[in-house]
Amino acid sequence: MSDTAYDRTARTTPTRYRERATWEREAIHAILDSAWICHLGFVADGAPVVLPTIYARVGDRLYVHGSTGSRPLRAAGADEGLAVCVTVTLVDGLVLAKSAFNHSVNFRSVVAHGTAHQVTDPQELETALDALVDHSIPGRSGDVRRPTAKELAKTAVVRLVLDEVSAKTRDDGVHDDEADLGLPYWAGVVPVGTVHGTPVPDASTTVPLPAYLHDFR
Amino acid sequence: MSDTAYDRTARTTPTRYRERATWEREAIHAILDSAWICHLGFVADGAPVVLPTIYARVGDRLYVHGSTGSRPLRAAGADEGLAVCVTVTLVDGLVLAKSAFNHSVNFRSVVAHGTAHQVTDPQELETALDALVDHSIPGRSGDVRRPTAKELAKTAVVRLVLDEVSAKTRDDGVHDDEADLGLPYWAGVVPVGTVHGTPVPDASTTVPLPAYLHDFR
Repeated sequence: MSDTAYDRTARTTPTRYRERATWEREAIHAILDSAWICHLGFVADGAPVVLPTIYARVGDRLYVHGSTGSRPLRAAGADEGLAVCVTVTLVDGLVLAKSAFNHSVNFRSVVAHGTAHQVTDPQELETALDALVDHSIPGRSGDVRRPTAKELAKTAVVRLVLDEVSAKTRDDGVHDDEADLGLPYWAGVVPVGTVHGTPVPDASTTVPLPAYLHDFR
Repeated sequence: MSDTAYDRTARTTPTRYRERATWEREAIHAILDSAWICHLGFVADGAPVVLPTIYARVGDRLYVHGSTGSRPLRAAGADEGLAVCVTVTLVDGLVLAKSAFNHSVNFRSVVAHGTAHQVTDPQELETALDALVDHSIPGRSGDVRRPTAKELAKTAVVRLVLDEVSAKTRDDGVHDDEADLGLPYWAGVVPVGTVHGTPVPDASTTVPLPAYLHDFR
């Protein structure tokens, strides 16, 4: 089966970010803005490490959040920064073909390579933290108790400037071999998506559900 | 905010796989069996690379699928194998606290480190390919045209024996600071989950929807 990011039918856009046409940048931004969990890859003692974490995009910058005590965040605080690969994946469908081999997955993904640096400028840190809150819950950053200086000191955010970045998508039906078309198996697409359930208030909550959570996706 | 895999409230299980109690192995297997997309990390020319792909578990082995032409799969074909990190993440909820800092994410994740090797034994390859099909669509491998020798030659599967593997989960409510509990902001949990839509048959399909797709999650 070929149901992977390596799928022969998937489309890639291998040119570098700064050389891209506007529509390509917009396609990359649209994917990045449709998810809020990324997988952050880095090398520690020569071995690959991949950790899930939240992220946000502000213009051509990706911000990835972590704890000041975590290894990748400490490494990104050094002058030379930390070589990273940030990958964002949205799964849109299972593509069932009549042959096992031609099964596939509809998906959208972005892979960004570069050097991450810790955000130290207080203004940029505040912008990044607001974006990290609003990326998963649009409108939320204006409806919370904001971080104290002590909390900010405990929070590490790294910046990755979008430069070497590619998008890959598959959004298509079944591609069966001609010889397989008459076989008596079910072929088609099963849509896959992410949903939000009904918000469950904490016992401390005395206010009604805010508007930004009413029609949350 | 602390809504990441680095979350202070998240639980880790740092002992090595073979030293784990049965319930820990079962918890790791349960997470691995609840998802079918992983993020595969490896090092190429000294830099980290993270790619999304499908995987399956058979006992203590993870199988990751790719194309024979792809770089990681070629590297895993060498005798020394390829150092990888395979990470699987399920997002279960957004945890909204009254302070930005105490926002969090409910999630389940598994991180597996080790050396991946290409599967060359024909019997193991067949087992792995069936598992890859059935992992995302239980029961499907018995209802397709099976791979030909030519197709098998074009398909690469790598094996990672579960050895250095850890699980991390957060499944909890809001943890606000005592001093914030009276603030007039909405706090609570917004459940997040993956759903399957109504299957859309291909024009070539002449059979009814099979039973294994009827109540698909």
